[in-house]
Amino acid sequence: MAVEVIKSVKIMHQRSATLKRSGERIGFVPTMGSLHEGHLSLVDIARNRSEIVVMSVFVNPTQFAEGEDLEQYPRDFDRDRRFAQERDVDILFYPSAEDVYQDNFRTEVQVTGLSKLLCGTTRPEHFTGVTTVVAKLFNIVQPDEAYFGQKDAQQAILIQQMVKDLNFPIDIIVGPIIRESDGLALSSRNVYLSDDERKQATSLSSALIKAKKTIESGERNSKFITRQIRSILSEQPDIKIDYIEIVDLEKLQPVEKIDGPALVAIAAFVGTTRLIDNIIIDKNESNTLKIENT
Amino acid sequence: MAVEVIKSVKIMHQRSATLKRSGERIGFVPTMGSLHEGHLSLVDIARNRSEIVVMSVFVNPTQFAEGEDLEQYPRDFDRDRRFAQERDVDILFYPSAEDVYQDNFRTEVQVTGLSKLLCGTTRPEHFTGVTTVVAKLFNIVQPDEAYFGQKDAQQAILIQQMVKDLNFPIDIIVGPIIRESDGLALSSRNVYLSDDERKQATSLSSALIKAKKTIESGERNSKFITRQIRSILSEQPDIKIDYIEIVDLEKLQPVEKIDGPALVAIAAFVGTTRLIDNIIIDKNESNTLKIENT
Repeated sequence: MAVEVIKSVKIMHQRSATLKRSGERIGFVPTMGSLHEGHLSLVDIARNRSEIVVMSVFVNPTQFAEGEDLEQYPRDFDRDRRFAQERDVDILFYPSAEDVYQDNFRTEVQVTGLSKLLCGTTRPEHFTGVTTVVAKLFNIVQPDEAYFGQKDAQQAILIQQMVKDLNFPIDIIVGPIIRESDGLALSSRNVYLSDDERKQATSLSSALIKAKKTIESGERNSKFITRQIRSILSEQPDIKIDYIEIVDLEKLQPVEKIDGPALVAIAAFVGTTRLIDNIIIDKNESNTLKIENT
Repeated sequence: MAVEVIKSVKIMHQRSATLKRSGERIGFVPTMGSLHEGHLSLVDIARNRSEIVVMSVFVNPTQFAEGEDLEQYPRDFDRDRRFAQERDVDILFYPSAEDVYQDNFRTEVQVTGLSKLLCGTTRPEHFTGVTTVVAKLFNIVQPDEAYFGQKDAQQAILIQQMVKDLNFPIDIIVGPIIRESDGLALSSRNVYLSDDERKQATSLSSALIKAKKTIESGERNSKFITRQIRSILSEQPDIKIDYIEIVDLEKLQPVEKIDGPALVAIAAFVGTTRLIDNIIIDKNESNTLKIENT
């Protein structure tokens, strides 16, 4: 059966209301399109857990700052629809920015504190844009479960916090990072990389794997680990580090000593392309963000 | 049948989910308790429109600033429960602050711009507290309709804006101001007034009624009207005006000439008690805030 494409907020709203009344559980995978195996792995998880799988494709303008890549962000809806169809998405929600942000729009949802750390240091408005649009999409789609990728770990943690704080009746499920065979984390922005930059970019994941091994071998000092990562990335001529941080998983505060679950996170420019990657250190070895049940 | 009292957020959540699945429409009247005929008139409207009527009683700490009347705000749950019972409320939701605001709470919902005008000038954090707790209550109670009083006109307008902006699938219904026989708008804070202050306080409504008559007789100049109100209030020795404003109903911007729907709003201290009152000028003479259907 062909994937059902809904372009209107109002019709999506009505469709969700009908599904809810019929008692079907809705699983929701919000994306900015330009789909890759990272997104599609979330669809597979949703397909297994939820009766109806809704995916949104919306390049949200409010999470891009002036001078960022809103205009050049890759868009190919026909390709996205084909992928969604192949992976058995039921409803593809593809609204316009004008429909999502009506005249006189002025409400913000902000996870204070957390939104200004890590990526929020250099992108101070980014996460307010993310949490606001996700709150809107949650209200439009009315999911029982929503799926996010660990690649954007800070985003996933902020959304878990927002869902808990605002009492959204939604389970947030975080899927693992999907990587190329050479370790590069899948990202829609990887298409910006030149061949040479593409090769240099693999140092992000190799530095993280090295860090994990060092920690597993007994090293607990965060500074030692971040220095090791910095040294590996510095070997690449076109990599400019934005940050290397080791933080706790709830408050995203830097930890000096790694003695509980921790997130080792990197953001770096490879040429002009900003990439992020991370790894979770957990005694339980599960290596994914916890699944939070609200 | 006795009104059902639910004190736990989690149980209220589950109860709402069950009601939703059964297809019953939930009408919701959020209050801070200390119920009076203003609240109960909203229950009556809800009783007529919705199958299940849920009322919350929660004195929300985050909408009080340091030095405001959070501690002394009148509380009498047994009285509130009796009133709720008499007016046929189905479920009375009465959570604790600890249950509503869990550890590490840090999310804010803000209607930017509007929240800093009128009452937001002297109470800059008040409306962020209001919109955040209302968003939470909406997610917990999952109403189809929610009822607010015109007495807190700015609050009602902000909530309508939040609901529209965040796509809550909820109709906001605004009920008229309920007044004592001498015109004083009902407010839980009226109990703070001494006998003498109580008499002086009636000048708020009499000034508004005079303003309405002046406008109806053809005067369109806002400055003339606010001067007239100021002159009436100034006759009372214990009234200190916070603001007198004539604004449009959507963006709450001051209007120079009254040629569309407008809100004439007053905030004033009567002794140490801050009271608000307002009147809506509308060619359609409906004199209540519009009922917005999302």
